[in-house]
Amino acid sequence: MGLFTKDIKTMNDLFVHQLQDIYYAEQQLTKALPKMAEKATDKQLKDGFLKHLDETKVHVQRLEQVFQMHGVKASAVNCPAIDGIIKEADETAGDVADKKVLDAALINAAQAAEHYEIVRYGSLIAWARQLGRNDCASVLQKTLDEEKATDQKLTALAEGKVNLRAAS
Amino acid sequence: MGLFTKDIKTMNDLFVHQLQDIYYAEQQLTKALPKMAEKATDKQLKDGFLKHLDETKVHVQRLEQVFQMHGVKASAVNCPAIDGIIKEADETAGDVADKKVLDAALINAAQAAEHYEIVRYGSLIAWARQLGRNDCASVLQKTLDEEKATDQKLTALAEGKVNLRAAS
Repeated sequence: MGLFTKDIKTMNDLFVHQLQDIYYAEQQLTKALPKMAEKATDKQLKDGFLKHLDETKVHVQRLEQVFQMHGVKASAVNCPAIDGIIKEADETAGDVADKKVLDAALINAAQAAEHYEIVRYGSLIAWARQLGRNDCASVLQKTLDEEKATDQKLTALAEGKVNLRAAS
Repeated sequence: MGLFTKDIKTMNDLFVHQLQDIYYAEQQLTKALPKMAEKATDKQLKDGFLKHLDETKVHVQRLEQVFQMHGVKASAVNCPAIDGIIKEADETAGDVADKKVLDAALINAAQAAEHYEIVRYGSLIAWARQLGRNDCASVLQKTLDEEKATDQKLTALAEGKVNLRAAS
């Protein structure tokens, strides 16, 4: 989609545009997550990032499946939101001197990415259903469930351990 | 905080950094929301954006109150995440030709901003409690509750009306 070219004329166009946007975002996250795992000190957090990296690779494949089901060639559009979220994560992590505080900052950064995805998948699922594409909605729902589960695990890890250690 | 200057040495530093980040984000949203209200066609959506603009101005004041309670001068740091979210909202809105589809896109854009804030306030509240600042946590909780309520209203408006009209 070009900038300000009014390429989005129907809800179907908006659905495809959003698929392209999240396709880019998931690809960027497959690059960001290994770096976050490398920076993490807490073993559970490090393992969590690596597990979510595996899931994220599956999310990319599921999006390719949805593109195919919908009869559209898989392609990505630039997504300034995820670029900003990743940039902010890098900058904040770069500013943190203490490793235990860094773990708390990394969780916060990862949750910003998770919530971005939760919003986008939520809209995609609602739009797919409105367009009569319950088949696409079902595939996207699997990913949404995994993003929500990851977000909850990160909250539990922060509040159960990492924040306590960071404040000690 | 400078870039990669390792200015964040303690959880308190991280808390203050995050306050500065969300202070910038809320200020940017007070500029973005009137434009979103202007673009919206659905009256309920337009009114919702304007009501949330009033709330956002209060969120800025509450952050100033928390800075003061915590004995730190209120200041903002650049927040690439919210800049990216607002940039993406502008670009997508500029691409949409149909006004009913635009309303669906605007709701999706606003929810990305809401969820960004939900994550940040959630971490701030957890960190404030860890630092023994339940007084700050209570003030921040009021804003978090309003962000969550706005997000839920946007979902209800999308699924109850706007998506249906956009797909018609």
